[in-house]
Amino acid sequence: MPVIKSQIRSGSYYDSAFLMNLQRSLAGLPGVQDAGVIMGTDANKELLAHIDLVSPEVNQAKPDDLVIVVRAEDAAAADAAIGQVDELLTRRKKSDSGDRHPQSLDSAVQMLPEAEWVLVSVAGRYAGNVARNALRQNKHVFLFSDNVPVEEEIALKNIAASKGLLVMGPDCGTAIIRGVGLGFANKVRLGPIGVVAAAGTGLQQVTSRIHQLGGCCSHGIGTCGRDLTEKVGAITFKMAIDALARDPETTVITLVSKPPAPKVADDVLKTALKAGKPVVVCFIGRAPTARRTDNLYFAGSLDEAAEISVELAKKGADAVEEVNVSAFAPGQKDLGGLFSGGTLAYEAQYILEGYVPKVWANAPLHKENKLPNSLVSQEHSIVDLGEDEFTVGRLHPMMDNELRVRRLLEEANDPSVAVIMLDVVIGYGSHPDPASELAPAVAKALEIARKAGRCLEVMAVVTGTDEDPQNLDAQINQMKAAGTWVSTSNEVVVRRVGSILRALNPAPEAAPEFKAKPVDLTTLQKTLAGINIGLESFAENLVAQGTPAVQVDWRPPAGGNDKLMSILERMKG
Amino acid sequence: MPVIKSQIRSGSYYDSAFLMNLQRSLAGLPGVQDAGVIMGTDANKELLAHIDLVSPEVNQAKPDDLVIVVRAEDAAAADAAIGQVDELLTRRKKSDSGDRHPQSLDSAVQMLPEAEWVLVSVAGRYAGNVARNALRQNKHVFLFSDNVPVEEEIALKNIAASKGLLVMGPDCGTAIIRGVGLGFANKVRLGPIGVVAAAGTGLQQVTSRIHQLGGCCSHGIGTCGRDLTEKVGAITFKMAIDALARDPETTVITLVSKPPAPKVADDVLKTALKAGKPVVVCFIGRAPTARRTDNLYFAGSLDEAAEISVELAKKGADAVEEVNVSAFAPGQKDLGGLFSGGTLAYEAQYILEGYVPKVWANAPLHKENKLPNSLVSQEHSIVDLGEDEFTVGRLHPMMDNELRVRRLLEEANDPSVAVIMLDVVIGYGSHPDPASELAPAVAKALEIARKAGRCLEVMAVVTGTDEDPQNLDAQINQMKAAGTWVSTSNEVVVRRVGSILRALNPAPEAAPEFKAKPVDLTTLQKTLAGINIGLESFAENLVAQGTPAVQVDWRPPAGGNDKLMSILERMKG
Repeated sequence: MPVIKSQIRSGSYYDSAFLMNLQRSLAGLPGVQDAGVIMGTDANKELLAHIDLVSPEVNQAKPDDLVIVVRAEDAAAADAAIGQVDELLTRRKKSDSGDRHPQSLDSAVQMLPEAEWVLVSVAGRYAGNVARNALRQNKHVFLFSDNVPVEEEIALKNIAASKGLLVMGPDCGTAIIRGVGLGFANKVRLGPIGVVAAAGTGLQQVTSRIHQLGGCCSHGIGTCGRDLTEKVGAITFKMAIDALARDPETTVITLVSKPPAPKVADDVLKTALKAGKPVVVCFIGRAPTARRTDNLYFAGSLDEAAEISVELAKKGADAVEEVNVSAFAPGQKDLGGLFSGGTLAYEAQYILEGYVPKVWANAPLHKENKLPNSLVSQEHSIVDLGEDEFTVGRLHPMMDNELRVRRLLEEANDPSVAVIMLDVVIGYGSHPDPASELAPAVAKALEIARKAGRCLEVMAVVTGTDEDPQNLDAQINQMKAAGTWVSTSNEVVVRRVGSILRALNPAPEAAPEFKAKPVDLTTLQKTLAGINIGLESFAENLVAQGTPAVQVDWRPPAGGNDKLMSILERMKG
Repeated sequence: MPVIKSQIRSGSYYDSAFLMNLQRSLAGLPGVQDAGVIMGTDANKELLAHIDLVSPEVNQAKPDDLVIVVRAEDAAAADAAIGQVDELLTRRKKSDSGDRHPQSLDSAVQMLPEAEWVLVSVAGRYAGNVARNALRQNKHVFLFSDNVPVEEEIALKNIAASKGLLVMGPDCGTAIIRGVGLGFANKVRLGPIGVVAAAGTGLQQVTSRIHQLGGCCSHGIGTCGRDLTEKVGAITFKMAIDALARDPETTVITLVSKPPAPKVADDVLKTALKAGKPVVVCFIGRAPTARRTDNLYFAGSLDEAAEISVELAKKGADAVEEVNVSAFAPGQKDLGGLFSGGTLAYEAQYILEGYVPKVWANAPLHKENKLPNSLVSQEHSIVDLGEDEFTVGRLHPMMDNELRVRRLLEEANDPSVAVIMLDVVIGYGSHPDPASELAPAVAKALEIARKAGRCLEVMAVVTGTDEDPQNLDAQINQMKAAGTWVSTSNEVVVRRVGSILRALNPAPEAAPEFKAKPVDLTTLQKTLAGINIGLESFAENLVAQGTPAVQVDWRPPAGGNDKLMSILERMKG
């Protein structure tokens, strides 16, 4: 008949690696079937009950209590095991006594003044104060500790932002700074891809896949998932994007997170749009609505994020012509899309959702965007002239351009229209030379605008092949000669249209000011040195990577007494 | 002062190419400013009003009336123009009289019995009967005509399905049969990519881009957008997928459409899953939730659909191990996912949405999937053991495998569990040799299941690089040696897990029977010959492509009288 014995110790602090070792030692004693050594939280007590390691005493334990419990073959074995706890604890302390670790962060900073990074992995209830102390010393903080309240996180990040420092965490598992891993991190070749991740194993999986695909990483900045909630407002995430945007060694930025709150996502993407380099965006669990928007590339999975990043780092992004809208007259802001192909018109509406809030259409993507009168454009409009309403007793607009030419000139006369988009679909069945009718109309439209003191951008997708009877190149050249911007990809044309429209129609609310002080890039670029407070293995891993590191022999201040700790902290304040 | 004059002709039938020519002739007469020649539908009358070609007489016109209207400099010029209408009509008839076209489909079939395809582009109100007649003659129908009622479409497609014939349309702009374009189509190299499209210019854009990227197409089967509504139920779309699945010349199938009704999308994808070859799915306007599910590859745009198709045709799909679930015992159907990495657990839930209806989790993607008790799995469950609830006073599961090993054995003892998924995350900070603890646990789990007469599939993602201290290959090999299916891609492992779960948990409603008679492949494979009823240019285009074609000199039966036409049709039965 197995016997369970337990012991509760209040007010003791041991780190979790130590507790694991104690548990294993107890479980290995003669006659012991199982052992648990753990803090007395409700979740932990449930777990002990689940594996049949429960006693009335254990049930009484408080979250701050250390619970030691064994199940043994008989009472004698159980008593013997519990009786050895003191000795096991003492043995551990003895082996500790040999080291010469500094006892405080301040002494550690004196020992290793070049360290710009402090790693914190003490228990959550102590972590905030330790991190605050590191910020006081102007150090970036890698905050591995979990169970840190969100208010504490916000307070820390506000202090950090005012000083240009990063608080990676709390609950941040992983970071890579110039090839050196902090916390849980993989060894990845140093190179041009910089990752910002609100997702610990997301960062590990993406950087590992990048490495496996032959790619290389500059930095991997973790932020913890809560950074992208509305409460925290992506303080660290945005500072990290901004730093990588300025970092000359980073040529591609990759963002990884669970889907953020919509407002925060907006804000993050606005920061990313201004990065001036390609940014791969992977919001796991939200399907990307477009492959690409300006310099943003959207990935649907961690693997895909890695693949796109490696590809972009290798080939560079497609050259994108700069969007300059200074030539347009005041009031010019709208799109007039005049399509002969329904699918092209439909895809155009879909892609434009990434750029402007609303596009009217006679064959709309969403019924609330139905153009009240198909004959009259309003705001941004896309008209499919091949819709049934236009083709009773009339040839399809791929064969007969008359209606489109009329409409094109109407759009050109509209002072609010800035961009006209057309499709020119060639092939069997279509008009034998559509550009011969459309190109002169484009020239006339541009002339109308010019005479009225306006600028007009006419952009066309030409759909067809070099084996089509019309001669694809000749069609393209005619359109270009008349002043049309042309591509054979509908997606490429629409993206360009979208970029111009976005520039002409800035969002009503000004982009929120990025109030954080920018991170000093030299702290990211110089050889890393770190101070570690908490799990010793993190310091050992820095040393294993050839990185100078100091372990602080940390003990809770005031013996872990909350009231005294708070008084001490206020005194430092 | 401009003068508008008009003339209405009732009961006349002219095809729309003829009307366009008449309009252009009138507009070119001396003193004429503008001219309209059009059927008197409301939409057309609005258009005439919009371009200032309106008169009281025009406003009275009925949809079946031919409206002829001119605006001229003065009354004399307007009268002169209208006075020439008769002569212009007669001139046209004279030029017609020289040809020797057959007057009916039946005679055309006698002239060109090898023709398997009938192209129909007469006005919508006549199109149904013409198509029905072609089906009676056992011909596939390319139905370009629009303004055909949906009830007529369903009736035609039901007849066609019972005979193994395709009705492409109505309002079908484009098809390519073994390299020969019907309607509006581009000249594309003959090769292995078969496209099915409920989107005319979608088919043109995708096949053109495939060609531009160096790819080649076998067939491009158009269906019209309405085919994918619940009413029509994708009759043609599914028959086309089935035909391309059986066609040995097609190695990749590409599907293009606007997003179908969810039920229809389900049904179409079920057909595609059974194709036995890679299928690229592009539902324009709906973001794909996964890159891939079994043999389905999801594209977010027409360009991407073309790119993926060309890639697959070139390289072939990644080899996928067959899923064979016969070894599992009855009752084995569930997943137990035991993760140390939160992001990997999160991505796994997201990808599995494409395979099973619900996955429980302690850190769920959707809050309604929250596991009631994190310590106990139920149905498909994914537990992230790195969540805060498990890590108070305990090392992270990447460092300490104890909790996961316990849980792994619990899952193995559960007779409903068929698949266990693990992540093994290596790198700095992690356990120095996690596989040394996890691999023996896997072996023990497999042994537990074996002894209980069950089969168990343990699958693991190993995250890390070849430069990590643990040695990636050694970790993988240890896991494999213990009987684990391993990949370094989370996405790849989860897809495989999903395929097994789907096979073990077939959807409650049986897949709807595909009742159509299969299309006779020889009709797709033999040299195309066609019979054209309607726009003459479509026959001319067939001839230009070296394809035998007969133009039918079609006139509405019974002079276009609805009552008489319906009696005639009933007589044919």
